[in-house]
Amino acid sequence: EIVDAIAAHFADAAHKPLAGRRALVTSGPTHEPIDPVRYIANRSSGKQGHAIAGALARLGAAVTLVSGPTRLPDPPGCAVVPIETAREMLAACEAALPADVAVCAAAVADWRVAGASDRKLKKDGGGPPALALAENPDILATLSKAGERRPALVVGFAAETGDVVATATAKRARKGCDWIVANDVSLGTTTFGGADNTVHLIRESGVESWPTMGKDAVAARLAEAVAAHFQTV
Amino acid sequence: EIVDAIAAHFADAAHKPLAGRRALVTSGPTHEPIDPVRYIANRSSGKQGHAIAGALARLGAAVTLVSGPTRLPDPPGCAVVPIETAREMLAACEAALPADVAVCAAAVADWRVAGASDRKLKKDGGGPPALALAENPDILATLSKAGERRPALVVGFAAETGDVVATATAKRARKGCDWIVANDVSLGTTTFGGADNTVHLIRESGVESWPTMGKDAVAARLAEAVAAHFQTV
Repeated sequence: EIVDAIAAHFADAAHKPLAGRRALVTSGPTHEPIDPVRYIANRSSGKQGHAIAGALARLGAAVTLVSGPTRLPDPPGCAVVPIETAREMLAACEAALPADVAVCAAAVADWRVAGASDRKLKKDGGGPPALALAENPDILATLSKAGERRPALVVGFAAETGDVVATATAKRARKGCDWIVANDVSLGTTTFGGADNTVHLIRESGVESWPTMGKDAVAARLAEAVAAHFQTV
Repeated sequence: EIVDAIAAHFADAAHKPLAGRRALVTSGPTHEPIDPVRYIANRSSGKQGHAIAGALARLGAAVTLVSGPTRLPDPPGCAVVPIETAREMLAACEAALPADVAVCAAAVADWRVAGASDRKLKKDGGGPPALALAENPDILATLSKAGERRPALVVGFAAETGDVVATATAKRARKGCDWIVANDVSLGTTTFGGADNTVHLIRESGVESWPTMGKDAVAARLAEAVAAHFQTV
């Protein structure tokens, strides 16, 4: 049994189908400043994105992980680039190219505050301030349409409420990415911050609905799918 | 030396000038939801508020700590009530009365999002949504003007940029609290999230400017000031 375990360990350690491949993974939330003390955030824990970065590295890929603020340790074997805002994340992603595969798992803020203040906003008795928003760059669409610098395989995430598969399928076409990993973040589910995930992998060839499993297991299965993709192209 | 250390320990352990007193402390940020995944937050770590709760408990007070989301362990000897929003914090504070002293160290959001959505806001191509804000309840002013239920000593915090003492002195009068602990949270300082704090204690009798010291030391000195206050009234 000990021999079997050691053999399994070395078999696993020798399973490096992504050796020589470069991977870019985004993870976590972005924080968009309102003023020096306030910001807009989201409930992404970074668990799924960090797990994917670690799983790709275990399969031999050279991984750059561009991550917003999380409470997570750096996954082993990854070069981690910490950022706060969506614009910083885009710049870090562009600096990490070229890459063979990009997995955009971060929950990037769609909007930032237009003209964030460098002084703390005060209550002045005149009622709440208007918070004007501006659209952030779309990192997934930018990577998907990056021309010569486009990664061969671009994978997006969709955190949806409502009709998850239909919405995410439309998102895949709109963004120009190859795959979408769709999950349901309705109030009744605990995907944000939780250990488990229930996802649908949406490709041109169709939809695979995976059973609920740990985020590490989702990451391992996705990393194997990435490896299989590169073995068949 | 061992005998001295033991004696010092028991001397310290026996220093309970706040025994029989009830204290209410608020700490941390509040999170104000925009939709199921997004929220407005602030950079308060909760370190100063949690340290004050612990310091009051060490002096013998029965402490209720009402805290927004932080990464901190519960301070020993405190009853901790976790909340997310300003409105939840006010309700928890009111439920914790009566108290002899209230220390409002939380960085309460001045504004919440009016009509937060129970579905994720989507980019619809029509430009960013308008984010309408509504004023949150003012917990410090509410406790300071609570009539019969007002704690005998109400201490507020002021996180200011610019002319810190003047702004905080005006805040003391406006809120109706007894003391204000004022600190500078300009971009160049590291008060938010850092281990140290540089504060001014503003009372009716005048301003004490304390040297920069650890947040635990600020907490211990403030707790002793609270104890001294009750010994002289």
